[in-house]
Amino acid sequence: MTFADRLHAAIRAKGTPALVGLDPRWEQLPAPLKAKAEAGGGSCYEIQARAFEEFCLRIIDVVADLVPAVKPQSAFFEDSGPAGVAALQRVIQAARDKGLIVICDAKRGDIGSTAEAYARAYLAGEDPSSAPFAADALTVNPYMGADTLQPFIDRAAACGGGLYVLVRTSNPGSGEFQNRLTEGQSLYQRVAEVVEKLNVDSHPARGYGSIGAVVGATYPEELGELRALMPHTPLLIPGYGSQGGTSADTSAGFDQAGLGAIVNSSRGIIFAHRKGPFAVADESHWESSVEAATRAMIDDLAQHTPAGRLQNCSQA
Amino acid sequence: MTFADRLHAAIRAKGTPALVGLDPRWEQLPAPLKAKAEAGGGSCYEIQARAFEEFCLRIIDVVADLVPAVKPQSAFFEDSGPAGVAALQRVIQAARDKGLIVICDAKRGDIGSTAEAYARAYLAGEDPSSAPFAADALTVNPYMGADTLQPFIDRAAACGGGLYVLVRTSNPGSGEFQNRLTEGQSLYQRVAEVVEKLNVDSHPARGYGSIGAVVGATYPEELGELRALMPHTPLLIPGYGSQGGTSADTSAGFDQAGLGAIVNSSRGIIFAHRKGPFAVADESHWESSVEAATRAMIDDLAQHTPAGRLQNCSQA
Repeated sequence: MTFADRLHAAIRAKGTPALVGLDPRWEQLPAPLKAKAEAGGGSCYEIQARAFEEFCLRIIDVVADLVPAVKPQSAFFEDSGPAGVAALQRVIQAARDKGLIVICDAKRGDIGSTAEAYARAYLAGEDPSSAPFAADALTVNPYMGADTLQPFIDRAAACGGGLYVLVRTSNPGSGEFQNRLTEGQSLYQRVAEVVEKLNVDSHPARGYGSIGAVVGATYPEELGELRALMPHTPLLIPGYGSQGGTSADTSAGFDQAGLGAIVNSSRGIIFAHRKGPFAVADESHWESSVEAATRAMIDDLAQHTPAGRLQNCSQA
Repeated sequence: MTFADRLHAAIRAKGTPALVGLDPRWEQLPAPLKAKAEAGGGSCYEIQARAFEEFCLRIIDVVADLVPAVKPQSAFFEDSGPAGVAALQRVIQAARDKGLIVICDAKRGDIGSTAEAYARAYLAGEDPSSAPFAADALTVNPYMGADTLQPFIDRAAACGGGLYVLVRTSNPGSGEFQNRLTEGQSLYQRVAEVVEKLNVDSHPARGYGSIGAVVGATYPEELGELRALMPHTPLLIPGYGSQGGTSADTSAGFDQAGLGAIVNSSRGIIFAHRKGPFAVADESHWESSVEAATRAMIDDLAQHTPAGRLQNCSQA
């Protein structure tokens, strides 16, 4: 099975396109979890890595039955050095063991054999034993040119893995370079065109290919335009929740069957115990907040996007 | 001292802008070194990581007195998982202990607090104990916009570290997006303009700032143009040697004093034992090839670029 097939099977099985971003930050961890990690001793990096691992594993336990996929953010693990990276490895493995699709958000990109090394490191596709960081899919940066995406595409095709190419990112300054017009076409539109062609060329007879695109919910009009421009490209939509995007803003990213897109929420779910409708006074109950926030996101997407059609399927 | 000051002091002290890229590849390692690593046992990742570490440490021993800086390529270490990343950590530390400037080539880039995490992970600047991967400088990708560079710039300024922003990369397809013209200005020229302004704004009274630019030797005309466009920006020039760039091709990257640029060679130096003028039949003598290739590159740059003026200084 291709990544796109596996992803859509998981979305159908769970009845939702909600993606939980695993972005652990020390300051925002539940106090009891930090205290436990500190009691274990070791360097500050070891303590942080231990806390991040337990935090993510417990989130995975909560969300594994609710959502199709998780997206660990590599930066926060790298920030603890080798101990952090070892924690990332185990978090990825644990998520896969629970049947979750894992998208490693590392935004890698480089030339030739260097890109091959990154692809080997992070793309395990169907066989979790085939890469040290055994993700199903990886985020990649297109700035260096499509020739630098090819080693990732080759590896993904060989292992049943997937990619998400940055197209239109969710940050306030994303337009600075991505919106530059050349003969009436913006850079992000051109990148989108390249990604779509790569999917069509590699899967001529299929629906969705396995080379996805990252398109922020913070630019809803462009999301609809890009869905139309990339009919064979699965979308990863960041920017929902804490970054300001609403479920309605993500709506145009879906096809009529409610497929073709996954919507990420990181802070809004994993730190739900701290603020908002699911905040708790006693931080030892933080996992209830994670579960409530995840269920609320699933409902929100079901009510305000075509993904609502998925729930009817999965309940039937 | 700023990164630019430390870099230029090191270039002057060694009398050369030659930068040795540490890009270990298992297939190309000297046979005796692979055999030794295999004899140590463990998983294939542990064996590869052990071999990469010894290989890089021995290269550092050879080149530490000859060149100002080394550039480990993170991808090859990540490809061995946590064991590889631990090796990268020790390689960076060993190079710094030998007085080398370390540029970690990881091409990171992300938004907000994620970029902060990457910056904390890789930028140690003047104090090698201040980051788990204690590099002096880090390569970064600008696609997401200048707002995503700011956390890296802030960290670099705080710790005396540096950055190298991808501007015009050395790969054959680099022009696909980087050459797109908007109102007569290419994307890489626009990124260059942004980088130069960041340097001018942060170091108004200085010569070179600490936010460098990556500009490939494989596009020599653009190199001269970019040197003129970015008079306060130090350049990192890949593409010399194995990728086809000559010393003459890099010449336009220097200022009249022979400063303002460093020229990278990876395979041409670290795998010199395998082919070319310094190949050896007995691979146990591979370090002689590394030394000879490094000295040849230094001479080549001295003869065909303004960096020749540095040698007169360091000999005087």
